[in-house]
Amino acid sequence: MSERAYSAIPFADVRITGPFWRERLETVLERTIPSQHAKLKGVGILNSLTLPKPIPPLTIPLTRHNFTMQVFWDSDVGKWIEAAAYALAHRRDADIEAKVDAIVDDLARAQSPDGYLNCWYNGREPDKRWTNLRDNHELYNAGHLLEGAIAYFRATGRRKLLDIMERYVDHIAATFGRGLGQKRGYCGHQEIELALVKLYRLTGDRRRLDLASYLIDERGAQPHYFTQEALARGEDPASFWAGTYEYNQSHIPVREQSRVVGHAVRAMYMASAMADLASELNDEGLKRACEALWRDVTNAQMYVTAGLGPKETNEGFTEPYDLPNETAYAETCASVALIFWAHRMLHLDLDGRYADVMELALFNGALTGLSREGTHYFYANPLESRGQHKRWAWHPCPCCTMNVSRLVASVAGYAISAREDGVAFHFYGGFETTASLAGVKVALRETSDYPWSGEVRIEVDPEEPSAFDLKLRIPGWAKEASAAVNSEPVKLAPVNGYATIHRIWRTGDAVTLDLKMAAERLYAHPNVRMDVGRAALRRGPLIYCVEEADNPGGPVQALTLPRSAPLDAAWRPDLFGGAMTLKANARRLVSAKENGALYSTEPPAARDAQLVAVPYHLWANRALGSMQVWVAELDA
Amino acid sequence: MSERAYSAIPFADVRITGPFWRERLETVLERTIPSQHAKLKGVGILNSLTLPKPIPPLTIPLTRHNFTMQVFWDSDVGKWIEAAAYALAHRRDADIEAKVDAIVDDLARAQSPDGYLNCWYNGREPDKRWTNLRDNHELYNAGHLLEGAIAYFRATGRRKLLDIMERYVDHIAATFGRGLGQKRGYCGHQEIELALVKLYRLTGDRRRLDLASYLIDERGAQPHYFTQEALARGEDPASFWAGTYEYNQSHIPVREQSRVVGHAVRAMYMASAMADLASELNDEGLKRACEALWRDVTNAQMYVTAGLGPKETNEGFTEPYDLPNETAYAETCASVALIFWAHRMLHLDLDGRYADVMELALFNGALTGLSREGTHYFYANPLESRGQHKRWAWHPCPCCTMNVSRLVASVAGYAISAREDGVAFHFYGGFETTASLAGVKVALRETSDYPWSGEVRIEVDPEEPSAFDLKLRIPGWAKEASAAVNSEPVKLAPVNGYATIHRIWRTGDAVTLDLKMAAERLYAHPNVRMDVGRAALRRGPLIYCVEEADNPGGPVQALTLPRSAPLDAAWRPDLFGGAMTLKANARRLVSAKENGALYSTEPPAARDAQLVAVPYHLWANRALGSMQVWVAELDA
Repeated sequence: MSERAYSAIPFADVRITGPFWRERLETVLERTIPSQHAKLKGVGILNSLTLPKPIPPLTIPLTRHNFTMQVFWDSDVGKWIEAAAYALAHRRDADIEAKVDAIVDDLARAQSPDGYLNCWYNGREPDKRWTNLRDNHELYNAGHLLEGAIAYFRATGRRKLLDIMERYVDHIAATFGRGLGQKRGYCGHQEIELALVKLYRLTGDRRRLDLASYLIDERGAQPHYFTQEALARGEDPASFWAGTYEYNQSHIPVREQSRVVGHAVRAMYMASAMADLASELNDEGLKRACEALWRDVTNAQMYVTAGLGPKETNEGFTEPYDLPNETAYAETCASVALIFWAHRMLHLDLDGRYADVMELALFNGALTGLSREGTHYFYANPLESRGQHKRWAWHPCPCCTMNVSRLVASVAGYAISAREDGVAFHFYGGFETTASLAGVKVALRETSDYPWSGEVRIEVDPEEPSAFDLKLRIPGWAKEASAAVNSEPVKLAPVNGYATIHRIWRTGDAVTLDLKMAAERLYAHPNVRMDVGRAALRRGPLIYCVEEADNPGGPVQALTLPRSAPLDAAWRPDLFGGAMTLKANARRLVSAKENGALYSTEPPAARDAQLVAVPYHLWANRALGSMQVWVAELDA
Repeated sequence: MSERAYSAIPFADVRITGPFWRERLETVLERTIPSQHAKLKGVGILNSLTLPKPIPPLTIPLTRHNFTMQVFWDSDVGKWIEAAAYALAHRRDADIEAKVDAIVDDLARAQSPDGYLNCWYNGREPDKRWTNLRDNHELYNAGHLLEGAIAYFRATGRRKLLDIMERYVDHIAATFGRGLGQKRGYCGHQEIELALVKLYRLTGDRRRLDLASYLIDERGAQPHYFTQEALARGEDPASFWAGTYEYNQSHIPVREQSRVVGHAVRAMYMASAMADLASELNDEGLKRACEALWRDVTNAQMYVTAGLGPKETNEGFTEPYDLPNETAYAETCASVALIFWAHRMLHLDLDGRYADVMELALFNGALTGLSREGTHYFYANPLESRGQHKRWAWHPCPCCTMNVSRLVASVAGYAISAREDGVAFHFYGGFETTASLAGVKVALRETSDYPWSGEVRIEVDPEEPSAFDLKLRIPGWAKEASAAVNSEPVKLAPVNGYATIHRIWRTGDAVTLDLKMAAERLYAHPNVRMDVGRAALRRGPLIYCVEEADNPGGPVQALTLPRSAPLDAAWRPDLFGGAMTLKANARRLVSAKENGALYSTEPPAARDAQLVAVPYHLWANRALGSMQVWVAELDA
């Protein structure tokens, strides 16, 4: 790791006090985590862990590719444990812990004597383990169980699952690699790579890093592992159902990749691991590949909500500027994974470009995946609806479910980073921690009503006077920012999106930061053909949308916003416990003809209408109806 | 049939002399019909007729619904014969006729002793005939073979195929009906109904009309035939792969249907037969159902090109105003079938509403399905492209191929209708015929450069002076129209879109009609969310599009057209042998920022640009590139 790099203050060391995230966290603690456990039980996922026992028939039938999503049930368990662990870091809960421990006992029984652990294969086809890495998610499952084990250990100190997973990782390390008799394989769905770096960071065991490094660098090597493996199964490698190894980013070695392609979540998990390894190994080649991929995704393949992957069939990317709104796939998991990657890029270079995208994804593309009441979800996150999009209580592929709960439960882990001589706030919203800075223990208390307000106060309380950097992110959206220390204005001169206040800090010092949150319009690059003539609305870190619940009278797509119309922010205490809305004098198009003809040489007439926009992450929590992010900017 | 109704002058009695259709007809004669025969041979369709013989393996594999498109190969043969027959009516061709006759000989050998004729079932599973009307197209195939037989008989007088098909129809009539021991079935894909009406009109055999009437009225009756039939096959009727009987319009009896639903081609073929039966039986109930369906489709479910059916999965309709452009399915066959229906509605009521849609579909939604050189096709007809849409030389489901060739080859049959006391021109473009009007033989010679020009001349040449109506359609798009008889201006007072000139016509009489063709903009109803803030361009019967070939410099979607910009028509002799283009001073949006950021608070800059639009039916005949019908009307 670069000596001067910042690293995250772990989730368990940061307390959330601000109202915005406190509310989400309480919802996840009280409703989401318990209801997810009930679902895992109800749909048979927990039961699939209790080996040996008679195996019930498939509940998710095989596709014509001879594939069932049941093969990755282990990962759902791992992610639920991880989410629960993050929640427990905020408030211990004997009932939840008992549930985790019961699962861990099942996993212990399910583990093979040689350390292998996969409830699908051990339960149904134990002789077929490691024969279809391309499709069957074994290492992916291992990665998620490992992440769960690490989080649970960090939250509770209990290490039974961690021990199980260390044994499994030993088995994996013995199985895969470039040594004699080892398989030169890697997973079709990246995930274990970043989990192994987490394990290394927890235990310091260098072998974990080596394994992650092998898995990343072997990917896309020739002869192609998935081709060899398909031949060994007696299958035609060319009949791969996804049609291309771009699907799982194994088409070329990762260091040569400069375009994000294929399945978006896989691409993001891979890039996260690449950034981790670039940090840990000071690997310039991996870092450059990360930067190239970053430019590609953020310059041409990201929705304004930080949604990723327009296409359903590959759950992923298509081509530059192809960002359809109503049919956007923009999987919740992909935005969650983009946060993972951005967070890691930030620790390669403390650059606000990464924090801007991390924040955008957090408050928009990812957060929208969880309903207000905490038990319904979106898998795909369209930017336009005619009212057909309804949140679901569960999904045959419930990956997004636990991805959004583990994200919200761990949000505190994304707010603050530190290094020896400084501390950096990436975003705000009421976060408290204690860090050791320049050898002195320093309590930091950030209070704000962020993201509704950009007025931030940070109390700095060192055990003894101490000189260090306080770095404050000045978001890309903040056109104006001012700050004061102990009420004395200080000049902000942000570098790469962060303003540094360096001084000898003393008990009682307080910094105030005022980030002007203007309601404003965003325009897409004109190559984004769907958004020509349209504007998106933003205030601070939040992207807004126009929803029929607030704009009755027909489809919201008939609302148009003259470019000259001012946007006003209006606080609505009655809306979901309080939310900032945006309002504007707009127009509603109505048929020019009495008879409502489908086509006419007369343009539609326009009536005055009030436009009310709500934060995108709040949509689809009321009656079904139309919704739109990109509003037509019609002057007529 | 209502005594006063007009009926079409058959294709074989109308000669095409105008340059527009002459060119298309020559292409179909010279290139399309022969190349389609070669394809039918090449992909094994003709070979599938040569029973008995060893059956080769499937070339189109079974889907997971245990279905192969090979079951409707017979229909492709029928449609090719029909298309060839229409072409032969223009110019006999011994080679083509020999090819038809060879097919007819195969069909004669393939026919069962009891009259049944289906090369799939007779070749592969003869004991399973009539066990899956829902999916397997047996009656649909029969309908297309019957249409082919009728057309070939009309064109050549040869009746071998007609005799074969009459025997088959006898068998079908014995098999299906409400009598003792008969099956109460009907086809999952409507088609035979309209073919039976054609047969009745040819032979006068009333039993054909009765069978058509039974098939239409039995549809959707309870207990539901497809449910009974699925149970008889041992299948769960609820597992119908299409999910709903709306797919094949059997969800309720046809007389109760007022919304167009499901598979668009089936819906249009059914409506065509309903209109036929309403005419022949003077059936007000069927007529009212037709009118309700017509209102629904034209008021809310039709593209501006007369494309129908936005959705790929059901090849059909979704909900009112759901007309996405880039993903439009708008199958060529559906626009062809809309022409069939509109033509029949016109013979229920001579109303320009029907002729307007017939013409729109003919010159746009249908004609675009055939490439300029005559051997490439579109199945789906999107209204926007980023350059991914390429015409194909053949398709696993080649239905559109022969639908567009049989349409073009028979276009003369749609131009003129007559009744005892009058003749009506529905559209223009150089059509000549001889009709018996008020007992006198009258030669009619219409000459024009339609659709490029609205200047029309009609010479009326009765064998002796005779009084009758000459009805001239004044298209809905013509804001101004004037006419003269023998250079003397006459006042036009169109009723329901047709102006009537009644007089005693004498040899040498000539009518001139001047329909002003203005280049103009069309606006969609504001409920069509995709087209808000956009305009389509039209001149006369032609809808235009903006194609990258004429507008280099990036995606055409970045071109915007200020509302105030005048549109100019410009003749381009070099373009496909001469075509009228539209031009306007427009703007091209370019990124406001040097760095080309994906999103910006600054709106894109706009540079002056010339916009060139070409008729939609001409698109995708040059280099692949972007295309758009609905242009953003941005003033900025």
